Amino acid sequence: MSRFFSSKYSGLVPYTPGEQPQDQQYIKLNTNESPFPPSPMAQRMARQAAGDLQLYSDPECRELTAIGAAYFGVDREEILFTNGSDEGLNFAFMAFCDEKHPAAFPDITYGFYPVFARLNGVPYEEIPLGEDFTVNPSEYMGVGKTVFLANPNAPTGIAIPVSEIEKILISNPDNVVVIDEAYVDFGAESCVNLIHTYSNLLVIQTMSKSRNLAGGRLGFCIGCRELIRDLNTIKYSVNPYNVNRMTMAAGIGAFADREYFRFCCEEIAENRSRSAEELKKIGFLMTDSLANFLFVRHPKIGGRELYLKLKEKGILIRHFETPRLKDYNRITVGSAEQMKTLTETLTELLKEYT
Amino acid sequence: MSRFFSSKYSGLVPYTPGEQPQDQQYIKLNTNESPFPPSPMAQRMARQAAGDLQLYSDPECRELTAIGAAYFGVDREEILFTNGSDEGLNFAFMAFCDEKHPAAFPDITYGFYPVFARLNGVPYEEIPLGEDFTVNPSEYMGVGKTVFLANPNAPTGIAIPVSEIEKILISNPDNVVVIDEAYVDFGAESCVNLIHTYSNLLVIQTMSKSRNLAGGRLGFCIGCRELIRDLNTIKYSVNPYNVNRMTMAAGIGAFADREYFRFCCEEIAENRSRSAEELKKIGFLMTDSLANFLFVRHPKIGGRELYLKLKEKGILIRHFETPRLKDYNRITVGSAEQMKTLTETLTELLKEYT
Repeated sequence: MSRFFSSKYSGLVPYTPGEQPQDQQYIKLNTNESPFPPSPMAQRMARQAAGDLQLYSDPECRELTAIGAAYFGVDREEILFTNGSDEGLNFAFMAFCDEKHPAAFPDITYGFYPVFARLNGVPYEEIPLGEDFTVNPSEYMGVGKTVFLANPNAPTGIAIPVSEIEKILISNPDNVVVIDEAYVDFGAESCVNLIHTYSNLLVIQTMSKSRNLAGGRLGFCIGCRELIRDLNTIKYSVNPYNVNRMTMAAGIGAFADREYFRFCCEEIAENRSRSAEELKKIGFLMTDSLANFLFVRHPKIGGRELYLKLKEKGILIRHFETPRLKDYNRITVGSAEQMKTLTETLTELLKEYT
Repeated sequence: MSRFFSSKYSGLVPYTPGEQPQDQQYIKLNTNESPFPPSPMAQRMARQAAGDLQLYSDPECRELTAIGAAYFGVDREEILFTNGSDEGLNFAFMAFCDEKHPAAFPDITYGFYPVFARLNGVPYEEIPLGEDFTVNPSEYMGVGKTVFLANPNAPTGIAIPVSEIEKILISNPDNVVVIDEAYVDFGAESCVNLIHTYSNLLVIQTMSKSRNLAGGRLGFCIGCRELIRDLNTIKYSVNPYNVNRMTMAAGIGAFADREYFRFCCEEIAENRSRSAEELKKIGFLMTDSLANFLFVRHPKIGGRELYLKLKEKGILIRHFETPRLKDYNRITVGSAEQMKTLTETLTELLKEYT
């Protein structure tokens, strides 16, 4: 820290991204990326846009916004694109939280929520998950705080039914409820259709996972036009040209290619079911994940040990060294071939522990 | 504004980007874009990266950082890439300004500085430019505030000699001095070489103008490693994956293609000189710009009138409707052909005013 650094931020503990080692080629099952390349249409459109980079991108993202709005059946004023969904989440913390509007989210969830809260000087309550790692919706009803819920949750993959989210929305009429649907497309139910019913609902999605654009950085927020207008006020005060031309074009291509999107989501859901079965056969315990990852532990091996053993064998998974998570690992669902290698490697590895 | 919007931001007046009309094709001389496409090498590398978008971008931007550092003769720990230089400027306002460290900048300069100050709750002093639109460096010496100076300044194009900036650095040892070199490559002198001498110097550049990547969104900060470390603390708390894969690749290509960079800068400097002469011949008055724009007025036509007349004729320039700027317009220096059309159109137009 330099002696010039503002005391406002001197206590910040930044987010730690998943490791991206460059020492060798790993089977990367650690950052919930898609095993499939972007849609050919997304690639083609992004490549075309590379020739016009001398011109600023459209700060209003008009074309992408029109296509995104049509895709979700909302108005153009009800959707805002951001530089990854992280930017949308930060904008929501900025716009809808402050000293008087503290945040509330599970104690085990996307690790960026507490970082955003501290960054913005927002007091926050971390509501413990149940013993079985589930969110208990009743604990958020009438909580009187700005609620952030990842649905499905990370790193557990467990989803809350939309009917329960409605109760949270109804019982917190003076607070925004942010539903972070980063993983929704792999089997859970989206809240997007509720935005016309609840003016306090903000849905945030990413194009990183189900639309194969993690490295393009594109996310979006959907909510009533007043909420989106507030987020735009923040955006135009922070970074009006937040989405670059190539990513905008890739986003348009990704929305247009519905068939490829469906193929990718179905493939991941299938690989998830198959891998879950295989892993259970060799003794793994796991939550009931609807996301593109499995959250697993094995009675015979500690979480860290398993993570290290797999890394040695060229497979990266995500380990969190915190008291409640340390026995577990989060394994991204990759391609059928990657998952076959994983189960074979684990089967082999477990022989040492019988 | 929704009833949920934080009172912290309810008074925000966001930045207004230059207009990007879609009603017809204009000769766009209003947003200081380059008239030349990105370097072929930048384009090729960006296109290649489009195939791997399913994988996150490297949050450390290792390859780009190594190339940028080598390019400027600094260490890798002394440079940080951002999602446009706007993001770098906002990070600097966050990191190095607060209630106790107010900001100081000219009253006429890049319009985003006061927006960033208000966004971050930073008190700021706007130091008036001289009658001739010059920055008087002595007014910043010993000012005891975090100084932001665009050099050359916008929208005037006037540069401060580096020797004067050194005096500002020396006389404000307890404050960071941010030199925003968005337009430096078109003829002014850079401060980058001073970062090893002054630990309170932060230089910010953009790849939007001289490197033809406005629509790619890439900027960077150069300073001693302690300052860069502070900015990284902010970055990893805001948006660790702020630079996408394609833009990172385009940046690498743009740095590698030094010849094309030189060609573009020289061409703009030539077109600027030639256009300045032509415009003076038909009665325009202007500042002595070292940037990729001219800041001009004509004794016979008001600034707004000129702007509207040119727009009617398919040429967009930038008009600012503020008391001291309203007689002027900022005209981006485009290609030789565009500038020829501009002077011809102006010559024709002025006939109505004799």
